[in-house]
Amino acid sequence: MPADTPATPARRTRLTPERERELFTAVVDLVREQGYDALTMDAVAARTKSSKATLYRQWESKPKLVATALRHLADKIPTDVDTGSLVGDLRHMVDTFIDQATEDTALLNGLAHAVSKDEELWQALYELHIRPGLEALDTVLQRGIERGELSPDNPAKEFVPHLIFGAFSTRKLIENRTADAEYMQRYLTAVVFPALGVSDWPTA
Amino acid sequence: MPADTPATPARRTRLTPERERELFTAVVDLVREQGYDALTMDAVAARTKSSKATLYRQWESKPKLVATALRHLADKIPTDVDTGSLVGDLRHMVDTFIDQATEDTALLNGLAHAVSKDEELWQALYELHIRPGLEALDTVLQRGIERGELSPDNPAKEFVPHLIFGAFSTRKLIENRTADAEYMQRYLTAVVFPALGVSDWPTA
Repeated sequence: MPADTPATPARRTRLTPERERELFTAVVDLVREQGYDALTMDAVAARTKSSKATLYRQWESKPKLVATALRHLADKIPTDVDTGSLVGDLRHMVDTFIDQATEDTALLNGLAHAVSKDEELWQALYELHIRPGLEALDTVLQRGIERGELSPDNPAKEFVPHLIFGAFSTRKLIENRTADAEYMQRYLTAVVFPALGVSDWPTA
Repeated sequence: MPADTPATPARRTRLTPERERELFTAVVDLVREQGYDALTMDAVAARTKSSKATLYRQWESKPKLVATALRHLADKIPTDVDTGSLVGDLRHMVDTFIDQATEDTALLNGLAHAVSKDEELWQALYELHIRPGLEALDTVLQRGIERGELSPDNPAKEFVPHLIFGAFSTRKLIENRTADAEYMQRYLTAVVFPALGVSDWPTA
């Protein structure tokens, strides 16, 4: 966008992309640390060395600022690697999720209550955190169908994202332990692969 | 406990059990509505028509008050009904969970961030919300093993609580929809039963 194009009418000043990114990163860090509900614009102003007036002028409100920050800091989308089998692809994908799972779980926990009441915030979280994972999983499952490993009408297929996303937060809740790579691989073997009707070893 | 037995040394006054229950109910309602992080002792005082001085004298701090409230308001433990099969028992149990799932999910969301940082609070949530469900599920699974329906070393067995608890919060997160009875029954059929190696229909 050329420098003389107005951004949005509400904005009176314009931040550099670097400064904006720095600010959005600080906002999302604060949500992880303190939780959304307890986050104040004072805390954002202090952490980012901005004035509250600037924050309100640019983003109007806390929900809008957090939603904008989420939209602009998209997850690294897991690299799609074709390992030659559905089992291999899912094992690989879960390993790449693990790398950002700790940060993501903190963010999800910090937003859990707020997104259940605020549709715009949920939408921003969905764009940031959920949709890239859903699309990556869908690619892997489609390839499994094309290879003939997975039946196109397998009823567990639609639940794979729920099973994988859910495992990260649920172990924390039930056991107060983090889902690590060993746990996730064991979970794939015990639950996800049997439900999909696939296995590590070729069946007779 | 006789009326003249001292409760704990820290307490200078004693509330009636009815008043205490009313107060704990209000605290847990506030966590559902506002989330733990945003909850203030002022809000608790206003809702319960108590003075903040009384609250601090009785419970010392917000985490202690919320933890105590959680411990004293245990979930109704799902009635254990023997339907004659593991599939029937799990279907029945999930239906009884549904009844309190909306309230429970709001509470879990309100506490998600705080319990990830506060061991005592997690422990109180575990006592209230998680342990009764784990014990009820364990009874049902054990009975399935005794009936010969479930192999004692089935690797999915340990994940059944994660799968069932997780489904409630994960659908909300991924689809922004509540997991209702129809969804949960479909999920049991598609995921949980195949992983456990059981089915609605007798296999040949």
